[in-house]
Amino acid sequence: MNVYADNAATTAVSKTALAAMLPCFQETYGNPSSLHSPGQRAEELLSEARAVFAKNLNANPREITFTSGGSEADTQALRSAAALGARKGKRHIISTKFEHHAVLHTLDALAKEGFSITLLDIPPDGVVTPEQVRAALRPDTCLVSVMFANNEIGTIQPIPEIGAVCREAGVLFHTDAVQAAGHLPIDVEAMQIDLLSLSAHKFHGPKGAGVLYARRNVPLVNVVYGGGQEHGKRPGTENIPAICGAAAAFQEACANMEQNAAHLRPLRDRLIAGLTAIPHSALNGDALRRLPGNVNLCFEGIEGESLLLLLDSKGIAASSGSACTSGSLDPSHVLLALGRPHEVAHGSLRLSLSAYNTAEEVDYILDVVPGILSYLREMSPVWDELEKGQRPHLI
Amino acid sequence: MNVYADNAATTAVSKTALAAMLPCFQETYGNPSSLHSPGQRAEELLSEARAVFAKNLNANPREITFTSGGSEADTQALRSAAALGARKGKRHIISTKFEHHAVLHTLDALAKEGFSITLLDIPPDGVVTPEQVRAALRPDTCLVSVMFANNEIGTIQPIPEIGAVCREAGVLFHTDAVQAAGHLPIDVEAMQIDLLSLSAHKFHGPKGAGVLYARRNVPLVNVVYGGGQEHGKRPGTENIPAICGAAAAFQEACANMEQNAAHLRPLRDRLIAGLTAIPHSALNGDALRRLPGNVNLCFEGIEGESLLLLLDSKGIAASSGSACTSGSLDPSHVLLALGRPHEVAHGSLRLSLSAYNTAEEVDYILDVVPGILSYLREMSPVWDELEKGQRPHLI
Repeated sequence: MNVYADNAATTAVSKTALAAMLPCFQETYGNPSSLHSPGQRAEELLSEARAVFAKNLNANPREITFTSGGSEADTQALRSAAALGARKGKRHIISTKFEHHAVLHTLDALAKEGFSITLLDIPPDGVVTPEQVRAALRPDTCLVSVMFANNEIGTIQPIPEIGAVCREAGVLFHTDAVQAAGHLPIDVEAMQIDLLSLSAHKFHGPKGAGVLYARRNVPLVNVVYGGGQEHGKRPGTENIPAICGAAAAFQEACANMEQNAAHLRPLRDRLIAGLTAIPHSALNGDALRRLPGNVNLCFEGIEGESLLLLLDSKGIAASSGSACTSGSLDPSHVLLALGRPHEVAHGSLRLSLSAYNTAEEVDYILDVVPGILSYLREMSPVWDELEKGQRPHLI
Repeated sequence: MNVYADNAATTAVSKTALAAMLPCFQETYGNPSSLHSPGQRAEELLSEARAVFAKNLNANPREITFTSGGSEADTQALRSAAALGARKGKRHIISTKFEHHAVLHTLDALAKEGFSITLLDIPPDGVVTPEQVRAALRPDTCLVSVMFANNEIGTIQPIPEIGAVCREAGVLFHTDAVQAAGHLPIDVEAMQIDLLSLSAHKFHGPKGAGVLYARRNVPLVNVVYGGGQEHGKRPGTENIPAICGAAAAFQEACANMEQNAAHLRPLRDRLIAGLTAIPHSALNGDALRRLPGNVNLCFEGIEGESLLLLLDSKGIAASSGSACTSGSLDPSHVLLALGRPHEVAHGSLRLSLSAYNTAEEVDYILDVVPGILSYLREMSPVWDELEKGQRPHLI
């Protein structure tokens, strides 16, 4: 049996999204900036796609900028808020220790450019509190950036409450909603969000399409320079096929959101129950305040990489953290921020389900994982020491 | 008859390219950074695509970075060379007045950051000379950026000769090859190019895929921040469908380059001969040192926009300059740099052919254009004054 359980890394393009893309390759292939009919037909598709994102985020179409993906949207959101802050003499930014690297590394760059960065600690349940944000505010704070849901452990942050704290303080609020968009309801007005990033390939849309929502009072600065596309703020010929696929996938995901969550939560909870029953395992992040499809655990005495390879040999595609950093031997910065010791953080497993996963697949995962874990632990000198009491169990 | 003659703006995706893309949406959709088999299959496709670009540019695969398009590649190329220059105390950059806005606007940003920019004048034939470059060199010059072929008038620049001047002076050489790639032979070694940008949708590849070639001694700086993709220098989940389509299209375009040029040059030359026979018209740029598919003329006494709309009503998709700036009422900066007066620059027409265009389509264009021009001139008060000798003819 083949089970794709790495939907937080990327997803298959849905039939609906692909159907929206296909005519754009060889029929409606014009450049939307062109005056002629083939160009104007592409421009209409672009406008329709923009309206879909605006409607489902409760934004104005003029506040929607298409980017090449979530990382670019994050980079541009932070750089834009920072530039606006700098013009007012405000150079302090608040974020968290478990943000995606698109946020953390942009903040590193801003720090080198003279900004002061406060990264909030992550409570053991993986949910940052509005009180933490409030306590970190300074007179020179220009931006708070807190992700909507974490990409590794799936914990959902109190976005409306943080939005309220920021609005009250007159500070811009950005949220990296790459993992949340299409999976959780988002209302930028009700939640008082000023900047939001999302990426289509996380909700069965295509790769190569991101969205940056920016409230109309937040002028964007360029990350990429060029022509007049996207009001000159995101130049380059618009990727119409990907944008149309993204809009179709977002519409579909938002329309089916409750139904998908109702399908996923029981699967997720069954995986959590079954896998936490394994001795010396622990769920990472709150059991309920998490994405409907996210399961993330640590198993003592194993290496996540070996676990993934053996799971793969059984047809199960899973992950040990985020795909973006899988080349690295460092343990996940998210799990470390959560307080997991290095040796525990190394033994992590993320299973991320989408609406395409079935109960049978979950059964199969629950059948396969315990045997692989036992096998790995039998081979592990660390496990041997743990079992002999030569080193203390950490979980 | 419908004739798409705006291939410099964008092209239809070729059958070959689309065939390479299709399996990547729902089959090989994994994230190349993932350890599991679906991810590793995507990683293999990524490596193969990188090898295709390396081979056809005579580069090493490690020197190929995939970006979201030409504008991003230009931005990153210039920013990288500038950062390297700044570290050595060299803050002077030479470019030309008729570069694409992706280059010119990045240079504007660099100027604000303290760089000194020299923009070379454009000779009447639209071909910058190596002597101009040499004369502009200063001890603090860190970069020369000259486009391979101009996007509006199609003139081909003396890239190997400029490369030699730069190498001799120890200055990095970037070329925006967005219009040239797939249409003209490129050899980064023989031509002594250090940085090169290209975009797939200009040679029947998909939108959303660009390539930045950077010689191994030129470290890239990030434009987008995030994960470890593309050696950490172009983060974000790789757009595998677009990258595979880009590679397939590039392979196809390079393999058929001579044949395509042999098909296009006679069509181009017939258009030029037919349209320059119209009174008070003038070809923009050298008649021979131009892209095989590029025709660009000015017609006195008309507005380019009206011409395009009437051509469109006859099924002909053409352009008045670059698509990227078509929303603007300003005349083309390229034609102004070429020395055309404002009122003449406004009356421009670009017809850009691809291998998909036929002799019948050229016949049709030659049938239609003269009548439309006569009609527009009859309605034009400016033409009336020109005819009555109340204002001098400029061409």
